[in-house]
Amino acid sequence: MIYKVAVQDARYPLDKSAGSDAIHRDPVYSYAVTQLLDEGGWTGTGLAFTLGAGNDLVCQAANYYAQRLIGHDIEAVMADFGNLFRAWSNDPQFRWLGPHKGVVHLALASVTNACYDLWAKKRGVPLWKLLLDLSPEALVQTLDFSYLEDEMTAEDALALLTSQQNDRRSREGILQSGYPGYDTSVGWFNYSDEQVRSNCQQALDAGFSAIKLKVGSEDAERDIRRAYLLREVAGPEVKIMLDANQQWNLPKAKAVCKKLAAMNPFWIEEPTHPDDIQAHQTLAQEIAPVKLALGEHVPNKVLFKNYLQTQSAAFIQVDAVRVGGVSEFLTISLLSKKFGIPVVPHVGDMGQLHQHLVLFNHIAMGHKALFLEHIPHLKKHFVHPVRINHGVYETPQEPGSSCDLLGV
Amino acid sequence: MIYKVAVQDARYPLDKSAGSDAIHRDPVYSYAVTQLLDEGGWTGTGLAFTLGAGNDLVCQAANYYAQRLIGHDIEAVMADFGNLFRAWSNDPQFRWLGPHKGVVHLALASVTNACYDLWAKKRGVPLWKLLLDLSPEALVQTLDFSYLEDEMTAEDALALLTSQQNDRRSREGILQSGYPGYDTSVGWFNYSDEQVRSNCQQALDAGFSAIKLKVGSEDAERDIRRAYLLREVAGPEVKIMLDANQQWNLPKAKAVCKKLAAMNPFWIEEPTHPDDIQAHQTLAQEIAPVKLALGEHVPNKVLFKNYLQTQSAAFIQVDAVRVGGVSEFLTISLLSKKFGIPVVPHVGDMGQLHQHLVLFNHIAMGHKALFLEHIPHLKKHFVHPVRINHGVYETPQEPGSSCDLLGV
Repeated sequence: MIYKVAVQDARYPLDKSAGSDAIHRDPVYSYAVTQLLDEGGWTGTGLAFTLGAGNDLVCQAANYYAQRLIGHDIEAVMADFGNLFRAWSNDPQFRWLGPHKGVVHLALASVTNACYDLWAKKRGVPLWKLLLDLSPEALVQTLDFSYLEDEMTAEDALALLTSQQNDRRSREGILQSGYPGYDTSVGWFNYSDEQVRSNCQQALDAGFSAIKLKVGSEDAERDIRRAYLLREVAGPEVKIMLDANQQWNLPKAKAVCKKLAAMNPFWIEEPTHPDDIQAHQTLAQEIAPVKLALGEHVPNKVLFKNYLQTQSAAFIQVDAVRVGGVSEFLTISLLSKKFGIPVVPHVGDMGQLHQHLVLFNHIAMGHKALFLEHIPHLKKHFVHPVRINHGVYETPQEPGSSCDLLGV
Repeated sequence: MIYKVAVQDARYPLDKSAGSDAIHRDPVYSYAVTQLLDEGGWTGTGLAFTLGAGNDLVCQAANYYAQRLIGHDIEAVMADFGNLFRAWSNDPQFRWLGPHKGVVHLALASVTNACYDLWAKKRGVPLWKLLLDLSPEALVQTLDFSYLEDEMTAEDALALLTSQQNDRRSREGILQSGYPGYDTSVGWFNYSDEQVRSNCQQALDAGFSAIKLKVGSEDAERDIRRAYLLREVAGPEVKIMLDANQQWNLPKAKAVCKKLAAMNPFWIEEPTHPDDIQAHQTLAQEIAPVKLALGEHVPNKVLFKNYLQTQSAAFIQVDAVRVGGVSEFLTISLLSKKFGIPVVPHVGDMGQLHQHLVLFNHIAMGHKALFLEHIPHLKKHFVHPVRINHGVYETPQEPGSSCDLLGV
């Protein structure tokens, strides 16, 4: 039984240029950390990610939800988590502050993630194993399909999971081989050309075959020059992703994306405002076969549904520490699978939690094991930091979701 | 010069059934109240509206913005408010909590509204007069068109306002005749059939010719019965609006809306999730000529642009205490005018602020003077409560935006 909850505001200032992008010039990577203390001695830990200012607001909102868990057994909570999630995210007064977005939804993510973590710890298994061992029925019971019914009901999700059961064995080899990573730290916005060159070489030497460059400069020529420079250094085979962090409006995005096409980007990420379904749809049509990726700032399953329906996102970058936690992440992954679109999470959690989730997405849903973003900035602060060898995530073995932080 | 700021958490419990709808069963109407104290003795007051829980979070976030105004002169602030609004709403760390939605955007609304209020008080005029007296250039300087450029730039907005200048005189008569109101309190969700009947009669007796009924029941038959009952009592000429408060998913909305068509609703409001552009587009096409209205929960201009582009909203219910205040309200009104869609605000402010804004929309933009929602619940708490006579709002004459609250 959960006898106590605590929510902590954990902030980690970064080195000068790391983490910078076109819009977030001075981030302080921060977590609203929910801890659920169980009488059995386990502590469930859940994270929501922010960039510093206002992390305290997320903590206060998380506490609002977390308090309700006191006196409850985690197995009972998770047996009907889908209904609980629906009820909490539609709290009659609190939902006005969203609904399903912003501070309150980040808070729900933190608490939800703590629930899944405690569940796995209490069962003594890593989260990926807990999820894989659940029956499709039990898994679907933890999800909420409200407002998705025009595309996917709980029954549809169950059918999808069941249909993938036979081939699961063939995909389990990834547990030994590990999930591929990509290096997101090659080209932060503030890095000089020289740094980008040398980071690229280091990434290739470390075994990565996919890397990212930040674009979205005031001066588009800077973006274009750096993108072609990186292609030159990396060679034609390496996958290069370009990330504009919402810095363009539609007319500018059209113009710049067309100039970037010839360096063959694997995707162009967050070209414009994360709420702008129509702009992404128009852009995707105009710049095809160049593909768009987005999700870092998309708050909920309803907006993701819209991006899938309009065929504007070729890669879904849902982040389980931005949407309503593991539950909504899995719901969006199922929906993406229905549309045949790969899930390549943004990792506000630095990959700690997502390394579990992408294994489940691949094995249980049949999602392609493309690659998972790797950001090492907070490595030293985690109790069980992710382990990357030759560009591949080693499968975590510790019980839980690998989100415990040192000193928190 | 602004020498001090204060943000207050003002909550007003309601009578038992007033204010109830299909999703908000137990609202506590609340304001995050920003006050800007000017050395000249004026206090600028701005509101954001919530339903109770979490109003404190909005207050904290508002204080984050408001502190920056200390030491500044309001005339200087407003001379370049569009750029300030863009900078604040894209604060490099804080925007992660949105962007442009949820707690942080509600907070920005409160502070923005306080700025406009102080500006009008210092000039000694009601807000509607301040706005009408500004040159189109000066008005546009207070707005931010970022992410709207594919549909409207600052230059386009200027051209629109300028083109309406010649006919303004012909629309100024409304300042004498008053802006029509509609009665939103006839059919709250929890009211019995008998109450709905008698409220309808009272509304007609009070001079209203447009009234609203809450729908969105678990049992659709209840909605249908009540809607036809209200039509029977009101007669064929009265405009009846039906409000589902997001309670339907798309399949259910289709089914129920088709059954409601024959009672000739003037609009059906918030049929489903406020982020679901595609669902509204599909529904609007399927139930035409029945029209949809929405905006109460739409957080920003980017989503409104999407609703306009997809022709899914026939009435734009933008609320200046939900989006980023007067500035974003006017931006969205200009965009709506471009699309030929009327603006009929939701009034979280109980009409106090919006009575000024709809006068400006009508006279300066040429928006049709349809009607403004009227909710009397908090009347006794305002220093200058709206005055409704024979269903018409009397034009306010006091300096400012009529948002001062007693005892706050």
